[in-house]
Amino acid sequence: MKALVYHGPDTKAWEDVPKPRVQADTDAVVRVDATTICGTDLHIMKGDVPAVTDGRILGHEAVGTVESVGTGVKNAKVGDRVLVSCITACAACRFCREGRPGQCLGGGGWILGHEIDGTQAEYVRVPFADTSTYPAPAGIEDEALLMLADILPTGYEVGVLNGHVRPGDVVVVVGAGPIGLSAIMGARLFSPSHIVAIDMADSRLLAAKQFGADVTINNSTDDALAIVRELTGGLGADVTIEAVGVPATFELATELVRPGGHVANIGVHGTPVTLHLETLWIKDVTITTGLVDATSTPTLLRLATSKQIAADQFVTHRFALDDMIEAYDVFGRAADTGALKIVLSRSASTER
Amino acid sequence: MKALVYHGPDTKAWEDVPKPRVQADTDAVVRVDATTICGTDLHIMKGDVPAVTDGRILGHEAVGTVESVGTGVKNAKVGDRVLVSCITACAACRFCREGRPGQCLGGGGWILGHEIDGTQAEYVRVPFADTSTYPAPAGIEDEALLMLADILPTGYEVGVLNGHVRPGDVVVVVGAGPIGLSAIMGARLFSPSHIVAIDMADSRLLAAKQFGADVTINNSTDDALAIVRELTGGLGADVTIEAVGVPATFELATELVRPGGHVANIGVHGTPVTLHLETLWIKDVTITTGLVDATSTPTLLRLATSKQIAADQFVTHRFALDDMIEAYDVFGRAADTGALKIVLSRSASTER
Amino acid sequence: MKALVYHGPDTKAWEDVPKPRVQADTDAVVRVDATTICGTDLHIMKGDVPAVTDGRILGHEAVGTVESVGTGVKNAKVGDRVLVSCITACAACRFCREGRPGQCLGGGGWILGHEIDGTQAEYVRVPFADTSTYPAPAGIEDEALLMLADILPTGYEVGVLNGHVRPGDVVVVVGAGPIGLSAIMGARLFSPSHIVAIDMADSRLLAAKQFGADVTINNSTDDALAIVRELTGGLGADVTIEAVGVPATFELATELVRPGGHVANIGVHGTPVTLHLETLWIKDVTITTGLVDATSTPTLLRLATSKQIAADQFVTHRFALDDMIEAYDVFGRAADTGALKIVLSRSASTER
Amino acid sequence: MKALVYHGPDTKAWEDVPKPRVQADTDAVVRVDATTICGTDLHIMKGDVPAVTDGRILGHEAVGTVESVGTGVKNAKVGDRVLVSCITACAACRFCREGRPGQCLGGGGWILGHEIDGTQAEYVRVPFADTSTYPAPAGIEDEALLMLADILPTGYEVGVLNGHVRPGDVVVVVGAGPIGLSAIMGARLFSPSHIVAIDMADSRLLAAKQFGADVTINNSTDDALAIVRELTGGLGADVTIEAVGVPATFELATELVRPGGHVANIGVHGTPVTLHLETLWIKDVTITTGLVDATSTPTLLRLATSKQIAADQFVTHRFALDDMIEAYDVFGRAADTGALKIVLSRSASTER
Repeated sequence: MKALVYHGPDTKAWEDVPKPRVQADTDAVVRVDATTICGTDLHIMKGDVPAVTDGRILGHEAVGTVESVGTGVKNAKVGDRVLVSCITACAACRFCREGRPGQCLGGGGWILGHEIDGTQAEYVRVPFADTSTYPAPAGIEDEALLMLADILPTGYEVGVLNGHVRPGDVVVVVGAGPIGLSAIMGARLFSPSHIVAIDMADSRLLAAKQFGADVTINNSTDDALAIVRELTGGLGADVTIEAVGVPATFELATELVRPGGHVANIGVHGTPVTLHLETLWIKDVTITTGLVDATSTPTLLRLATSKQIAADQFVTHRFALDDMIEAYDVFGRAADTGALKIVLSRSASTER
Repeated sequence: MKALVYHGPDTKAWEDVPKPRVQADTDAVVRVDATTICGTDLHIMKGDVPAVTDGRILGHEAVGTVESVGTGVKNAKVGDRVLVSCITACAACRFCREGRPGQCLGGGGWILGHEIDGTQAEYVRVPFADTSTYPAPAGIEDEALLMLADILPTGYEVGVLNGHVRPGDVVVVVGAGPIGLSAIMGARLFSPSHIVAIDMADSRLLAAKQFGADVTINNSTDDALAIVRELTGGLGADVTIEAVGVPATFELATELVRPGGHVANIGVHGTPVTLHLETLWIKDVTITTGLVDATSTPTLLRLATSKQIAADQFVTHRFALDDMIEAYDVFGRAADTGALKIVLSRSASTER
Repeated sequence: MKALVYHGPDTKAWEDVPKPRVQADTDAVVRVDATTICGTDLHIMKGDVPAVTDGRILGHEAVGTVESVGTGVKNAKVGDRVLVSCITACAACRFCREGRPGQCLGGGGWILGHEIDGTQAEYVRVPFADTSTYPAPAGIEDEALLMLADILPTGYEVGVLNGHVRPGDVVVVVGAGPIGLSAIMGARLFSPSHIVAIDMADSRLLAAKQFGADVTINNSTDDALAIVRELTGGLGADVTIEAVGVPATFELATELVRPGGHVANIGVHGTPVTLHLETLWIKDVTITTGLVDATSTPTLLRLATSKQIAADQFVTHRFALDDMIEAYDVFGRAADTGALKIVLSRSASTER
Repeated sequence: MKALVYHGPDTKAWEDVPKPRVQADTDAVVRVDATTICGTDLHIMKGDVPAVTDGRILGHEAVGTVESVGTGVKNAKVGDRVLVSCITACAACRFCREGRPGQCLGGGGWILGHEIDGTQAEYVRVPFADTSTYPAPAGIEDEALLMLADILPTGYEVGVLNGHVRPGDVVVVVGAGPIGLSAIMGARLFSPSHIVAIDMADSRLLAAKQFGADVTINNSTDDALAIVRELTGGLGADVTIEAVGVPATFELATELVRPGGHVANIGVHGTPVTLHLETLWIKDVTITTGLVDATSTPTLLRLATSKQIAADQFVTHRFALDDMIEAYDVFGRAADTGALKIVLSRSASTER
């Protein structure tokens, strides 16, 4: 079969590889009907994720059809249309049982396209298939469903739930890339009074408006602190969500929060940041970090089915699987192409 | 009357000042029967707290007797024996009504010995007396009661409650000074399986054992990370509590916590710290900061009355009020004198 | 001045009474610009609330203008336009400080039109004015604001917050009168996947649809249990909210809830109910009761100002204050008149 | 092998039955080293649990040694000493993944000695062995460990955690049988200021004192309401725990709770109860029901290992497995024999 194979920093190929087979009795092999590319894949391509080694098939998001299952798989059946989650859950370890499979100690967690071969391929082996895939509900298209594999639960769990967004809150989202937009979409479910998006690119801020932000701040030109204070009677935001992953945006998120407020970090950071405890120690703030657990997937499936979240709003570009290299190029030049999420489909005609 | 007056960095005097009078109708004037010195007072004496200006009477902890009240004071009566809390609560502002009077917007918060004259005096004016003093229960001595003015609620609220200590947890307290000991005493109320105290002074670690730590680590010689990992199956502590206020101890607290764990900062920091988000972003940690609200005071009063907390265990030295300068000296040389908390009493004969 | 005075069961008059004056220094006297009638007032008129005695002015909801204040009132100023909440908060007692002023031990709670004279009058004395009134934000009309005096916080706090409504939930509201509609409006803020309204009157179910229910069940003809099970894969609703106050509806609410779900009782009950613990003991259900605390008022004010709740949607009839008796008649015959909430205004021309 | 087999109401035998074998690949067969009898087994013997049919081996608590495992069992190894929990967890269904395996939809829940053969036998087949057994820690005896199979997690989860016991609380436990004692033992972990035990038998109240109650009330002679009010300044208890399962005790639990308090029902009820909503509707109470999930087992194992709970304190009688019928007799006459928990061991010499 064909797959996108990592061959070290900046080197990848859409090439022939052996089709995966069931190895453990709890495995399923899933035919990939739709997959996508994540910002994390770009990090991997830069060589920033040492656990990913030469020969690894990338990708951790898919919608597909179950092709074969091990003897221990009870719920997933051959022929089922399923969502393959970015998080694999052994379901038996301490963290899985505590509802935190992102920290799985039993061989799961984020492993697809990382520690084992992933979803940017014609087929993918999914360990612990019963607790790592979800039956696709009727009435929701592949490309909408695909957004529930990673980006939507990430914004919702790590941003919105960790940040304890409540009705009437003023929520600031720092960074209006795909993950920030996901946090905006998730925050709306709790009816904040204002969602403020901050970015340095006007095109992203325009997208933020479309996703539900009612205030946008270009912090290359505008004074975010002054605007947020004005909006909040001088106190600061109830919740700030960091969705970039660099020191400056994290510091901004901690500066904009009110006494008693929450700072939810979603960004993937590569360097330490400065935490201004000399001012924050007295401010009763709560700062959270986290990897997605995808435990919200059933909830998000219901909301996507009832059309309360428009999951397909993320999809800006569509390709056939075989156009994987081109799709990486388009996604990698998002500033130029306006790409948010790209869908690669088994049966797609390429569309831009 | 006599009072301890701040006259700029490193300059103070026990001198004659006018006796305070009721100014607002919600004020009480309280005769100070017992007061104490806080680590924060030493910070003030170094000039680190610019809001404290020449002429200010220091001190924010007292047990006393109500001498006079304004017309709007409904609960506190002349002659009542009361605890004067370090936190003054207007009770009407947003934060007071949300149970967060430490952040009071209505003229309260930490104001005694800071923005207004404090308790290291023969008399003190207490604004918003009904919600800033507590009737002293029968059967609890002044010096035990005095520990509920600041140190016990601080360790309990900012350390233990913010850290979400739970039965069976492994709790690490970094810093075994008075505030760390308070966190240890508070943590025991939730029956953790282990309380680990870390400090660089063996004398403090000995005190930590007496307050309830069952594992002590002198991190000038021992490898705290190795010991905590050994104790926790390699995962790290459920809760770490920072009780020092310098970058190294904060970083240690974030290093020792397990995935999904809590880091509760109590320390008063004067400089920024480094937050290692390059490792923490994925670990699902929750970091909290906070000023005490003293909302736990009624709970702690019940526990002190029922002898479930031995509040007087903190008291190492006792002085008469008039020996204030000497008491400051003994408290300021705690490393030599072994001082934890010092009680200055109206009627005390000096005792060491 | 004129006021609606209770003279025993079924006897009331719009009659001349002395204008109230400031009695305690924390009182305000407020000129009533708009008031309304609550279902509880009808209960009182039947003689069901023994604490209400002959001569009492009824009413516990108002929007008005501050006419005079006691010397201890700090925030409310003469001339301010304010919301008078149904809950009076002393702010100093244990329950007020815990965010539960509905249970106030210091002379507050629900006292207006109950233990002291109320708002169905030209003027009303409001005790503890600083913590029992809210400044009216600009841009929100009296009649919308008036809905925040009781009905909106009641549905939101006692129904939605106590019920822990979460995004994606199936929420059942039993009873589609004004209080049930308020719960529906409040539940929408949390984006449930379905809101099911149950009532025996089609006209009320039609209103429920307009307030945001997407499934309606007339349980005089339809099988509510079958429909809810169908909607929930056989499990039952995540949250059921009782908004009637009779045994049959409470029992229905407990029958419709799923294992692990919440039953939030808002209804005012006059008789005991049967709790089927022989089936519920094993089902992990949480049942809550409660009087409104009105602590959500600031949140609801923000949401009404940002137009995320259409508070004025409740208002079906408008009268001048002097038409109080007629307004009671229309409200008392709601089944015929379709009355939800009636606004009586100082300056209104009568409109139906 | 020998097993205790139910043959209809009031009929049982310790008789030869086939030794169980692994059926599903996630099964383990465990040699029973120690088992016990639960109050629920007595209910079954009366014919009160229709799901239990003729031929069923009873018992849902054991400590044993793994004899054989299916191919899908990853953690439990042949020869391991394990705790067999009363709750079997499929780990994959919605409720298991939400931390609520007592409500398991995938073939687990309470099934041992109920829907499938149980632990009062020489061997038992345990489905979903990886998530339904726990490795026995070193340093804890079989009979202490056995108390973690059901009674300790039941009192802790359904009573103490559901009841939200907090430091300083006044906790009332209605019923001082084994399950009430378990709630008392669990409540102590949270340092309430008072634990009040209520029962009609002085012998049970004596046991309650030994388990940690500091106030005992014989409600056949004393006025529980008066005593609890006296202890709580007239307000009522913060938490009341029902540990009997009859209407009178449930009603008492709801009568003794303070405004804003929690009523946690543990009792297994066979008939409906009366809920006095005519007084409770306004009191802000939270009532919970529940089956144990045994998710606290890891916590309790740590606390038993660190000797913070003295689990073996429950054990009043010890028998050899072959004395099962006699053990049932002794346990069934607990009022006479003083039996709390009885341990039946493979290797025991009978001791009384």
